[in-house]
Amino acid sequence: MVTDRPLCFHHNLAEVVRLSALGGVNLVQLREKETNSRQFLELAKHIKEILTPFQVPLLINDRIDICLAAGADGVHLGQSDLPWMEARRLLGSSAIIGLSLETKEDYHSLIQTEPKPNLDYIAVSPVFDTATKTNTKPAWGLEGLHWLRTQTTIPIVAIGGIKESNAKSVIEAGADSLAVVSAICSAKDPKFVTETLSKKFHA
Amino acid sequence: MVTDRPLCFHHNLAEVVRLSALGGVNLVQLREKETNSRQFLELAKHIKEILTPFQVPLLINDRIDICLAAGADGVHLGQSDLPWMEARRLLGSSAIIGLSLETKEDYHSLIQTEPKPNLDYIAVSPVFDTATKTNTKPAWGLEGLHWLRTQTTIPIVAIGGIKESNAKSVIEAGADSLAVVSAICSAKDPKFVTETLSKKFHA
Repeated sequence: MVTDRPLCFHHNLAEVVRLSALGGVNLVQLREKETNSRQFLELAKHIKEILTPFQVPLLINDRIDICLAAGADGVHLGQSDLPWMEARRLLGSSAIIGLSLETKEDYHSLIQTEPKPNLDYIAVSPVFDTATKTNTKPAWGLEGLHWLRTQTTIPIVAIGGIKESNAKSVIEAGADSLAVVSAICSAKDPKFVTETLSKKFHA
Repeated sequence: MVTDRPLCFHHNLAEVVRLSALGGVNLVQLREKETNSRQFLELAKHIKEILTPFQVPLLINDRIDICLAAGADGVHLGQSDLPWMEARRLLGSSAIIGLSLETKEDYHSLIQTEPKPNLDYIAVSPVFDTATKTNTKPAWGLEGLHWLRTQTTIPIVAIGGIKESNAKSVIEAGADSLAVVSAICSAKDPKFVTETLSKKFHA
């Protein structure tokens, strides 16, 4: 699950995280674009406290320093964030590090650059068009996701416009995980939505 | 010297830094508010390369991760950035860490909180009103700076509206260093301005 505070209509962000953990979420990415560093750290520490009893890892979007200071489990990096090698060097081998790929060129650049990627996952972003993120490149679509699946054994996370009705097709196209923003953040019942989406993997 | 890219009218930022190093600047703080993490890192590495032959330390504003990734010498922290203890823990004892104080309450809070401050300097911000930074609290003025000087032996850096005509009075009020933004960044001759300001300490 990827947080988006403005989309938390029915519960505050911390409560959405707690409810999604109750619903079986297996990873939370904290994404804060408008917050200052100190507030971001305080929030990260709070979310980490909520997730620890569930043994659900917390990733921080972009900010390696916030990850280190909050004792989070890793970072999610975009194409304009720090290079993954720097994150690996600063966070160590046990940190969870994921990288968003927006285009096939991003993938080619990743595998053609030394060193070879030491990433826990790559994110196909966005798999479908969405209103959550702005300035994204054209959506990968299911074909793009399937193409990437044929290229690599790195775990693939699909993000962007995923909801109950399309989750099955995204999994069938090759996604190892689904990253969900609005469908959970804006849900009246984030626990139920998380449970429903999790079941798609066991279907 | 504190950088401000939009104020670099006559030279690009890297050239302003080089010229101020030629003029005898003793520290550069790289402040980037609108740049993404990757561009910030690239710029920090470039500025570090420029400063290394001059043995002038480079501080990064706010971003401890950029400091670590760029091999910079430390960070400058504001009141809404990560707490200085986190910076010290992440950067180590040899890093240069400075903290902006905007009010007397900021100073009281700093000295009343455990652990005792392990800072290389505190910045009186702003000493005079200025157009460079927005949302700052009322200026300290020379009396405020002098008051702080009577309270602490931590080196004091004065920032905000400092130029040739008022530099002497700021030093006399107790500043150990002058942090200059627009007077250097927007100068036609940053080297000359830096030389002129440096001489105020030897007068």
